[in-house]
This record gives sequence, C-alpha cells and structure tokens, in this order.
Amino acid sequence: MSYKVAVVGATGNVGREMLNVLAERQFPVSEVVALASTRSVGKEVYFGDKALKVKALEYYDFKGTDIVLMSAGGNVSKEWSPKIAAQGALVIDNSSAWRMDREVPLVVPEVNADALSDVKKGIIANPNCSTIQLVVALKPLHDAATIKRVVVSTYQSVSGTGKDAMDELFTQTRAVFVTDPIEPKIYPKRIAFNVIPQGGTYLDSGYTTEEFKMMAETQKILDPDIRLTCTVVRVPVFIGHSEAVNIEFENPITASKAREILRASPGILVVDKREDGGYVTPVEAAGEDAVYVSRIRKDPTVENGLDLWVVSDNLRKGAATNAVQIAEVLMNRKLLKKAA
Amino acid sequence: MSYKVAVVGATGNVGREMLNVLAERQFPVSEVVALASTRSVGKEVYFGDKALKVKALEYYDFKGTDIVLMSAGGNVSKEWSPKIAAQGALVIDNSSAWRMDREVPLVVPEVNADALSDVKKGIIANPNCSTIQLVVALKPLHDAATIKRVVVSTYQSVSGTGKDAMDELFTQTRAVFVTDPIEPKIYPKRIAFNVIPQGGTYLDSGYTTEEFKMMAETQKILDPDIRLTCTVVRVPVFIGHSEAVNIEFENPITASKAREILRASPGILVVDKREDGGYVTPVEAAGEDAVYVSRIRKDPTVENGLDLWVVSDNLRKGAATNAVQIAEVLMNRKLLKKAA
Repeated sequence: MSYKVAVVGATGNVGREMLNVLAERQFPVSEVVALASTRSVGKEVYFGDKALKVKALEYYDFKGTDIVLMSAGGNVSKEWSPKIAAQGALVIDNSSAWRMDREVPLVVPEVNADALSDVKKGIIANPNCSTIQLVVALKPLHDAATIKRVVVSTYQSVSGTGKDAMDELFTQTRAVFVTDPIEPKIYPKRIAFNVIPQGGTYLDSGYTTEEFKMMAETQKILDPDIRLTCTVVRVPVFIGHSEAVNIEFENPITASKAREILRASPGILVVDKREDGGYVTPVEAAGEDAVYVSRIRKDPTVENGLDLWVVSDNLRKGAATNAVQIAEVLMNRKLLKKAA
Repeated sequence: MSYKVAVVGATGNVGREMLNVLAERQFPVSEVVALASTRSVGKEVYFGDKALKVKALEYYDFKGTDIVLMSAGGNVSKEWSPKIAAQGALVIDNSSAWRMDREVPLVVPEVNADALSDVKKGIIANPNCSTIQLVVALKPLHDAATIKRVVVSTYQSVSGTGKDAMDELFTQTRAVFVTDPIEPKIYPKRIAFNVIPQGGTYLDSGYTTEEFKMMAETQKILDPDIRLTCTVVRVPVFIGHSEAVNIEFENPITASKAREILRASPGILVVDKREDGGYVTPVEAAGEDAVYVSRIRKDPTVENGLDLWVVSDNLRKGAATNAVQIAEVLMNRKLLKKAA
C-alpha cells in the first residue's frame, strides 16, 4: 500500500522540510506533488534526490490524492482545507486556522495520538512549533505527578517566522558589521544582536497571539486543567526553539525521578550533565527530530516544583516531522483511507 | 568638597563605564586615578575628554584616596578591598566577593539606600547586573502588593562576561558568515546565532552560580521572604540584559495599577504600548541608565499574578551607574568621610 501525497506551501521553510522528512522516513508514497501559490510555479524543490517542479495550488485537481500536508498560512488553509477534504484527501494542516476547532483533532503523536480516531472534517491540525516541543516534555511528567501550573519563557528562532525573517537576520547582521543602516521589515524592531519580546500580534489581554496559542493548545492537547502563562521572545538564532520551563506539580516528583521518566519517554533525549556545556543548545538541535531536555532541577520555591530547559528544531519536530508522524500513525492504525 | 577617586579594573568593560559615568554625572572629583593589573600599565583610558594613563594596582598607595570603585573580579577584590579600606578609602565593589557578607551592605539606591548607614568594613557591594535591574522593578510592586514568588528567565548579553566575550561573539559571527570553523573559548558552546543556558558554573542544586546570585541577592536587598527561581541564559546580544519576569503577589494588583506605580518609581521608565514594537529591547537600552519595564500584563493562572519584561544596560545601571549612585547617596547623606 502506498499513498499519493501533496505538500502545499512546498517552497517555504516548513514545506521543504516536509519533503525532506517524507523522504528520510521513507513514507510509502506512490507520488509526491509540490504545490504553492502561482508565483512559485516552475520553481524546483527536492524530494530526496528528486527535483519536483512546483505546481499551482489554485489549478490543482486533488482527486486521487490521499494525504495533503499543508503549510501555507492560516488564510490559505481556511479556504482550501475544506475544499481539499471534500475531494477525499486527508489534510494535515500546519497553520493555526483549525487548531481550536472542536471538530478538528490537534495532535502530537507522543501525547494524544488517540485523538486521531475521530477526524470529522477530514482535517487534522499540527500544533504551533513552540507548543509541540513543550507538550512532548510535559506529558510524561504530567502522567507521573499531575501538572498544576507552568511558566514558560521562550527563545524562538527566526525560521519560525519564515524564510524572509532568516534573510532579515542575515542581512541585518552583515549591516552591523559594515555599519550600514538597519531597517526592520519583517520584525517590528531590529533582530540582529537583539531580542524581541513579541510573537505575532497583541491581544486585549496583553498577551500576544503566539503566547495565547501555547496556553490554549497545551490545554487542548494535554489537559484543560493545566494553567500556563508564557512570554514569547524572538532571538537571533536561525533554527531551533528553546524554552525555560517552570512547573508546579500536584504530587511530589524529584529531579532525578523526572530525569528517569523523561529518558524513558518517546521523542525525548535527555542531555543533562551538571558541568560546563552539559545541556543542548539550538545549534545542536537543528536538523534533528528529538525534543531535548536539559537542566532538570528542583525548584525549591514551591512544594513540588521543577525547572527545565527544552530545545527542538522548530521546522522538524515543531512542524514537518510532527505532521509526517501524524500520517504514520494514521497509516499504522489503518485510519488512512485510499482516495477513490 | 571634592573627592579623590580611584577606579580599579579601569580597562575592563565596567571600569571604563565607571569613568564615563563619573564624568557624565559630574561627580565632584579632585582627582581620578585609573588602576589595573601590571599588564595594563601604560594603557590609556578616558575620563570625559581626559586621557588617563593606567597605573598598577599592586604598587599604588591609596593614602589620601576617598573612594575606590572596584571592578576587578572576585579574587582581586578579596585580597585588595580590605587592604584599601584599611588605608581609609571607601570601597564600592562590583565583584561577588563581598555581596553575601553580613557586614557588607549590598545596595541598589532606589531599593535599599538606608543600608548605607552601616558600613562596618569600609566596603559596599554592588549587586550582580541581572539582580539590580530586577529589584528596581520589583521594589515598588512589592511595596504595593507584597511579592510571594518570582519566576525569572534571563536573556543576558555577552558584555556581562567581559570584553573577551564580546570579541568571541563578534569573531564567531564573522566565522559563520565566511564558514570558518568555530572554536568556543570563553563560553562552553558557540554563542553566535545560539543561546546558552549557563551563567557561571554549576552548583550541587543544579542551579548555576549566576542563578544563585539572583536568588540570594534579591532576598538580601529586597526581602528574605521572597521566593525566587530563575534560569539564566546567555544570548548573542552585545549590551543589555533582558528578563521575562512572572510575579505572584499576596494582595491584588491590576496591570494598570502596576503600570501607574512603576511610572512613578525612581529609576524606571515604562514603555508599554500594546501594539507592534510597543516595548523596549536591549539595543535600545544600551547606553542608557534607566530600567525599562514593558509588557505588563495580568497572569490569570494565579490569584494575584503579573508578567513583565525588564531591560537595562548591564554595564551602566547593572554595574557602573549603580556604583556611582551609591557614592552620590553617601555624599548627599554626608556619610562620605574625607580620607586623612
């Protein structure tokens, strides 16, 4: 059994990574199609060693396509995902368009794969990058000691914003070196040799949209009773999101017990030596699929508290890898129907 | 009345800034002397427009010197501060050597200037850079609603580590551009386009020394009943430390009340518009003396909670400016004796 797969938004950071991950994990494909907006038509992207010519989403006939991996932004997804699903393909969407829809499962396979048994609209949502790595780390600890409250501060790389943001970091950094003037375009302020405490736009609550996503998505995926507050900060890193995570538990859990539990949990690599460099940083996580957990230590300021440091490649486990893993679970559980 | 002032460690990041701040604030000096280790002897540093030739600490006679601003590291301070104080000069020390000594006041003038009335050893300690900006922001909120617990994540610039660390960020960044190999020397891992969750060295608790300083110093300066946990992270920024701060209060306090209180508090500038760019980032704080507070918002996950974002120039308010302010308070309160 093999499947016809289309990647929508194939020229973007995540789209290209989806093609890489499909090839690397040898997902059983009969055909892979790269789609994007009309202005990208004719560009080449790679599926393994094979160059694919990009076709226009607008004119593509999805009849016969089994799986569509979408990474084309919220507005495109709102318009196209239902149309594509109506043609019989299953859509795994990386935008925020469907995540909070009650009839759309929001899935991180290590955490809530069972939600895949009820795909009402033919659409499955991939959570936000910073949420995925967080819930992978929280899930086994929640099972062990019941999480009450989480305080997260993020150190998010520019690749999460897109290719233009990576170019902006590169160009601005060079401008600092040659003392050229710097004009921010993608971000509201300079990102080179700076940090920006804004992800997305402001909500009335004073939180930003990126912060709200982490709070709401964690509750939907993991447990609606978990209280979470966070500050999302963009840092001058190309790939890899980091998170400083403070957790308050209902029940006692020691740092060494947490370390042992995390070591035995799916999708996690614990790197935690209490010596110089005994932790993972984003440049080391880039290109990898694991969620890395470091700096696991007791927080003595609450009865049952832990602090930890969580890093992952936001384009892979934070997006592309998670989407392909969802497709793999559906396939393995025989929930993936062949299109007519 | 004017004073003979010596700056020890005058060629370092903080030492040079101490000379700048003394000149800018027109501290009444009869003479300013620049001291450093023997290997810096003969180098020139600037006090305003005036070039000073650096002299050797080891051979300097402190008789007649009224105030010594020390920024020469913990070991030098341990050896020299008592010797200098014994010669009648008042030492304001920027290292960690004396901060937790019960007979040494640890002072941020906006927070606990009254501790200056009891200088037993002739030594006053300047707190750690990341602690100073934090307690300036916390103090008025603590007065208003009593802080119970604080969770801090820092985004600390490389200048806090010293000039070599600034060179390392510069050199490594250039190496990334020309794809030269990168060998970390000052930091345990690459800092260019990366973040490093380690400040100082590890303690048995799993916290680092830089994290422990923030916890212990905040309690000594502000209130021993405040519980504080933190994660210290080095980011590829040259100057300016940022902090994501989550606060739990004993009593109710709204975000708008906090904003109003902070606006009226000494040493603080509130920049907090809920729109793109409506906050302060480190590149904007560099060269300034204020502690900037932004992103003040209600944290709904506890009964009385607030989140905020605090930025300041770690070399100025975080070190040099605070030291000179201490000297100013002593002078204004007539606590500064002329040396014999």
